[in-house]
Amino acid sequence: MITETFDSRKAAWQIIHRALEAVDPAKAVHNYFNSNPDVGDSIKSTPGRIFVVGAGKAGTPMAAAASEIFGSKIEAGQMIVKYGHTGGQADVSDKIVISEAGHPVPDQAGFSAAQAMSKMLSQTREDDVVLCLISGGGSALLTLPADGLSLTDLQDTTQALLSAGATINQINTIRKHLSAVKGGGLARLAAPAQVYALILSDVVGDPLEVIASGPTVPDPSTFADAWAIVEQYGLESTLPDPVVQRLQAGLNGDIADTPDHHDPIFNRVTNIIIGSNRIAAQAAVKAAQEEGFTAQLLTTFVEGEAREVARVMAGLAKGIAREEGFVRPTCLVLGGETTVTIRGDGKGGRNQEMALAAAIALQGWPNTLIVCLGTDGNDGPTDAAGAFADGTTVDRAAEITLSAVESLNRNDAYNFFNALDDLIMTGPTNTNVNDLTFILVW
Amino acid sequence: MITETFDSRKAAWQIIHRALEAVDPAKAVHNYFNSNPDVGDSIKSTPGRIFVVGAGKAGTPMAAAASEIFGSKIEAGQMIVKYGHTGGQADVSDKIVISEAGHPVPDQAGFSAAQAMSKMLSQTREDDVVLCLISGGGSALLTLPADGLSLTDLQDTTQALLSAGATINQINTIRKHLSAVKGGGLARLAAPAQVYALILSDVVGDPLEVIASGPTVPDPSTFADAWAIVEQYGLESTLPDPVVQRLQAGLNGDIADTPDHHDPIFNRVTNIIIGSNRIAAQAAVKAAQEEGFTAQLLTTFVEGEAREVARVMAGLAKGIAREEGFVRPTCLVLGGETTVTIRGDGKGGRNQEMALAAAIALQGWPNTLIVCLGTDGNDGPTDAAGAFADGTTVDRAAEITLSAVESLNRNDAYNFFNALDDLIMTGPTNTNVNDLTFILVW
Repeated sequence: MITETFDSRKAAWQIIHRALEAVDPAKAVHNYFNSNPDVGDSIKSTPGRIFVVGAGKAGTPMAAAASEIFGSKIEAGQMIVKYGHTGGQADVSDKIVISEAGHPVPDQAGFSAAQAMSKMLSQTREDDVVLCLISGGGSALLTLPADGLSLTDLQDTTQALLSAGATINQINTIRKHLSAVKGGGLARLAAPAQVYALILSDVVGDPLEVIASGPTVPDPSTFADAWAIVEQYGLESTLPDPVVQRLQAGLNGDIADTPDHHDPIFNRVTNIIIGSNRIAAQAAVKAAQEEGFTAQLLTTFVEGEAREVARVMAGLAKGIAREEGFVRPTCLVLGGETTVTIRGDGKGGRNQEMALAAAIALQGWPNTLIVCLGTDGNDGPTDAAGAFADGTTVDRAAEITLSAVESLNRNDAYNFFNALDDLIMTGPTNTNVNDLTFILVW
Repeated sequence: MITETFDSRKAAWQIIHRALEAVDPAKAVHNYFNSNPDVGDSIKSTPGRIFVVGAGKAGTPMAAAASEIFGSKIEAGQMIVKYGHTGGQADVSDKIVISEAGHPVPDQAGFSAAQAMSKMLSQTREDDVVLCLISGGGSALLTLPADGLSLTDLQDTTQALLSAGATINQINTIRKHLSAVKGGGLARLAAPAQVYALILSDVVGDPLEVIASGPTVPDPSTFADAWAIVEQYGLESTLPDPVVQRLQAGLNGDIADTPDHHDPIFNRVTNIIIGSNRIAAQAAVKAAQEEGFTAQLLTTFVEGEAREVARVMAGLAKGIAREEGFVRPTCLVLGGETTVTIRGDGKGGRNQEMALAAAIALQGWPNTLIVCLGTDGNDGPTDAAGAFADGTTVDRAAEITLSAVESLNRNDAYNFFNALDDLIMTGPTNTNVNDLTFILVW
């Protein structure tokens, strides 16, 4: 209930906690099987074996949850996580090996772990189940060059494409055609087993073929597409010889293309988004309702320059304050991922920058609060997840001779909000489903 | 009803027409008195006389409507409109003089008309009614320097403040204290008559004291505020002598300050927003509902760089397309006024620029349409009111070798949408309640 003594920060923290809880890696795995007991039962009752594989920063808690659920039914497992991400859970299971590897630059440790994973999957039979646990960072961590290629070949290729000005989509098309695991490769390795891929999405809009480069997902691109990109940038003699040879062999039909959506292997693959911006946003909506707000999820597709997006967020708050389309108290929930054009030498992240610009636009508007939250707990290169902005922020800063406009000009939102004790400190969440904005008006 | 053969453009045009109709100057006056017959009856039954005064680009049709409603009861009137804005309605009434004057730079014609208005109001008695009709452009058109000041003094003062870097709020504070009509001055002239000010708002958020510089509205600023601004920029010896003398006399209490909200003259003044972005947006919501959409007004406070705001608009469309928070078909309505940072030498306006950036973000999304509309019918220096953006825009342009990204880089949205026949051509509407965006997804 929202009363005279309503504590907006307390309500906001409830919403934050509930949103993050919904995408907590271990809880997300448990939530999925709790909500779909038939899937869990079907896996448990397989006459074959259960293998657990996967990659991503959330790999350890996801594997721990799988181990809790399937226990001794698990035959073996191989996870790849970022250095330092095994935490206290390195021994989540005596069946599942959790290997640490390089991120964002792939390294030999990841290569070796991926080889072990490939070897493990090569022994699967039709009555086996492969549980594939994917989370943010999975693309770099799960790196297995196709036959005849080295890790260096892949690195040189990426560098050449970046230098030539190729788009991220183009780079990913080439990468998928040089990999044994990306672009449906892992599904091919896991065949003929039944595959369940549980995915924590860190990409806006949850495009399955993009998240972790789609190891269990049909690849819409072909060797012909890949070669067209090489020709577009005139890289025929720049790329490493083994790379050019592979792409040409693929173009000529001498080696199999990545599996597309017609490929029968996908009849035995189920891809399930168990954590996403949308799932976190929906949990926030429920939490806001329980705090007494009318709550509305607007979109999880917010993109744009953080300080300009912030002005729209503030505009939405003002619309509620004037009850133009919603009655107070209302909480709007939006998600996505903004960008920041660096202008100064300050400290911050896109969520803190958005909060700062929102505070400037909200100055003097009572009973408003905008919460800008990075779900991984580390917004930009800082230890804050984001910041709180309200109608008093700018004036409270001015009282301690801190200028909101100057701090924004310097991209120095961290120090600004730190001085006001308005940073959101959650600690690392081990999950990443992009960013959330909550607009509360009461 | 939205069927297989649903024509989204036709539905959009219905919404556009209904939104513009709701803020048509003459219709807005009629609508107000139709919805509030007691006010009209009370004015008609006054034992005194009715005077019609006011200023703004929509002055002619507003005066014509007043003449239709109050006819021969009108004793006299003096309106000030922009050059060319008497149209075919110069003879709307043999009682109301409609004078044309300079805009945005005030001129002698406006000065003379304002003097005539002042003289007319000086004869009002307590049982008279003054109908004051205010619309966009009213601040420049209704210019009457305070005693002892010339038009040149005002112009020089504005120039000096602009050169010194004063904010628009600061400039307006000074202006109100140098004017006989701004900042409640017209209400003071109209006293002791009963005043009804009917206002078409061209300012985001409808702040009464800002629209046309608030001629019938209490002034929150004082001579002390005005002098503080002069001192802040060290303009004591730069401003014209008569201006400095007046501001100092006001500071010393030798002349009366602008009337504030305690002033009893406002007991007999009623300010009524008869047309605004909100009123247009509400009409759009109703029209969208009649076209079969779930419709929701989000805010009329949209501000920000047009191309970045556009990405949020596209994000909202994608959220509906995925039915994250709304079910299809849904129409979201937003209003406000964005800005464009000029980068190229193309032709366009902020609504067309927003539509172009929205089209880029929407590429490939079916069953979406974003309508970006300037309510005055002239978006930027063009004859278009805005443009339509949908999921096919970018591809349709590519078919005629037109690059959306390059057109945006050149700020050349007008030529881009003209080639696609996707400009919104309404002709001048004689009204201005800022901009509207309709996001349709079905």
